Amino acid sequence: MIYLDNAATTRPDAGCFEEAKKYISECYYNPSALYAEGYNLHLSLKQAHKNILSLVAGDGYELVFTSCGTEADNHALFCGGKRGNVVTTLGEHSAVFSAANELAQRGIEVRFAPLNGDGSVNVQALLALVDGKTSLVSVIHVCNETGAVNDINYISSAVKGINKNTLFHSDGVQAFGKIPFRLGENVDMYSISAHKIGAMKGTGALIKRKKLVLKPFIFGGGQEGGLRSGTENVFGIKMFECAALKKYGNLKDNFNYVRGLQRELWNRLDKDLFERISPEEGTPYILTVAARGVRGETVLHEADDCGLIIGTGSACSSNEKKRYSRVILACGIDEERADGILRLSFSPENTPEEMACAADILNKIVKNRRDIMA
Amino acid sequence: MIYLDNAATTRPDAGCFEEAKKYISECYYNPSALYAEGYNLHLSLKQAHKNILSLVAGDGYELVFTSCGTEADNHALFCGGKRGNVVTTLGEHSAVFSAANELAQRGIEVRFAPLNGDGSVNVQALLALVDGKTSLVSVIHVCNETGAVNDINYISSAVKGINKNTLFHSDGVQAFGKIPFRLGENVDMYSISAHKIGAMKGTGALIKRKKLVLKPFIFGGGQEGGLRSGTENVFGIKMFECAALKKYGNLKDNFNYVRGLQRELWNRLDKDLFERISPEEGTPYILTVAARGVRGETVLHEADDCGLIIGTGSACSSNEKKRYSRVILACGIDEERADGILRLSFSPENTPEEMACAADILNKIVKNRRDIMA
Repeated sequence: MIYLDNAATTRPDAGCFEEAKKYISECYYNPSALYAEGYNLHLSLKQAHKNILSLVAGDGYELVFTSCGTEADNHALFCGGKRGNVVTTLGEHSAVFSAANELAQRGIEVRFAPLNGDGSVNVQALLALVDGKTSLVSVIHVCNETGAVNDINYISSAVKGINKNTLFHSDGVQAFGKIPFRLGENVDMYSISAHKIGAMKGTGALIKRKKLVLKPFIFGGGQEGGLRSGTENVFGIKMFECAALKKYGNLKDNFNYVRGLQRELWNRLDKDLFERISPEEGTPYILTVAARGVRGETVLHEADDCGLIIGTGSACSSNEKKRYSRVILACGIDEERADGILRLSFSPENTPEEMACAADILNKIVKNRRDIMA
Repeated sequence: MIYLDNAATTRPDAGCFEEAKKYISECYYNPSALYAEGYNLHLSLKQAHKNILSLVAGDGYELVFTSCGTEADNHALFCGGKRGNVVTTLGEHSAVFSAANELAQRGIEVRFAPLNGDGSVNVQALLALVDGKTSLVSVIHVCNETGAVNDINYISSAVKGINKNTLFHSDGVQAFGKIPFRLGENVDMYSISAHKIGAMKGTGALIKRKKLVLKPFIFGGGQEGGLRSGTENVFGIKMFECAALKKYGNLKDNFNYVRGLQRELWNRLDKDLFERISPEEGTPYILTVAARGVRGETVLHEADDCGLIIGTGSACSSNEKKRYSRVILACGIDEERADGILRLSFSPENTPEEMACAADILNKIVKNRRDIMA
């Protein structure tokens, strides 16, 4: 199988699993326990906080482990967007988009900024929505549907220029471990996820400015400095730490290698059959194309039969059972093209040979479908 | 090492791990993905829902996987306790107790029922707190600090007799997989946790009546029938399913075996040195005692040095950094005795030989300490 749905989830790293599996079989204690075996796990978790945090943020930040990127986004939205209005974009992942809609249900005014054609936010339009009553702005870092990158350090600074009390959050799930980046001082909160970078489903984190007083989202035994209660998922966290260190140890090499894969695949796709949606300057980890005149879901299933696994957009959106992606439509893409969307997403484990093979399969499927329909 | 802190967490079952590790190395796909590999995981998760649910509940119930028991408790409290007043007990785990206090911060009147001396709730006092404005009652099933069992089927029926619109929730974390029990029709919500029964930290579930319309607590991609968003922790859930089936396959044998362990240990403890706090008719999985005139924490550390791991109460409470357990004090136990609390908690993996050895160690430590102080 050729796996090109790495933006949906990734294969857990085998080396990290070898290292971390002792947290299942041996070091299975409760990190809140007072005896040495528990306290050692507490120290080990502290190390994980420090190690992961250092990869993208300076001393002014701290990290709260959560159960997933979605929980981190919900924490930021529900605990950051308390009054006045909240500004976000039409390009957000459902974890922010649905939470924003829930905030609206609870009586907060929510304003959605429009997108550019590549899926990035229209920055001027976004800034025009921010005012003296804006409590929170949330802008996705890398668009999970097109791969467009929003310059969140610039946007957060511009937001603070309008209202210095506005909190700025970004969903960094598709950026962390993939694109070179450090948090600028005006980003107050940043969500990341483990299973997108070779670690486990069930672990994520919210990175936040230390000075930001944030309420907990989940209350209980006071784990994570009181900010996230519930017995810590030690195995998931240690896998996350290992995978993150590994990704950042090779970040630039991986970036260049994956950019090569993305180019190779795009070069080999038949331009009569596929239109590129992803911007040239977006993340190399995602290549979104529209198959002309063929449904993406049909291509996905035929490709699967040929041993090629691809996506049609956000995996999470499949639960919404809507034919067209709301993010793709918000890019101004018409329904006919939106119907043919394919998301091809990479990991450094993929190879150029796989790109050649994938392009062959996709070219054949779409050509064949069009021939049948002609 | 002799591990007698199984109420804090348990060693993940090696057989279940062997079965479930394919969800790390091979079946690592996103269960929301549309291709066959993703859809098969979706089906596999459906099976896990059904299998776990069937162990304690009938057709009128459904199950929502969460990241832990704490999240399940928070979901029940924050989404069930919306108006009027909320009634709970002084014997709750922090996951309910802290969430209830947060509800009070948000303007809901919260009423705490007092406990009996063994840690069970004073049922008459609880029922006297329920009135026409009570939106939610939450009563822990098995007290995690003393092992007292509350008859939640009876209590929930009595609550509905006073106000049929009141929702009834119970934290079943220390009951599930341990004591024989099925949910009566008046229990609307029930929280369970995986890592207390030989599965992984990072997985829990909220069981709820199907007809109960509950808002999501975490919003996003609409996983878990829209009730709990975030990519499903497939490995954790399949471990949970395996461990739960295993526990229920031997529930009565385990219960009787562990009752034997509990009796063996208690019989061997020197009654001049230890006072029993746990009721005779409580769960056999927990034996809480007060060491007379010696700090529990001191005994815990000395026991650890001798190869015996025990607890002093809820592991979660250690984050609160309070000297005395609020639950133990609410049992009417004075501070001197509260200072010496030890929680010894079992699993079917423990042996009678371990009980004999543990009793020797504990008798020696406490006697020695008292001799030094005398």
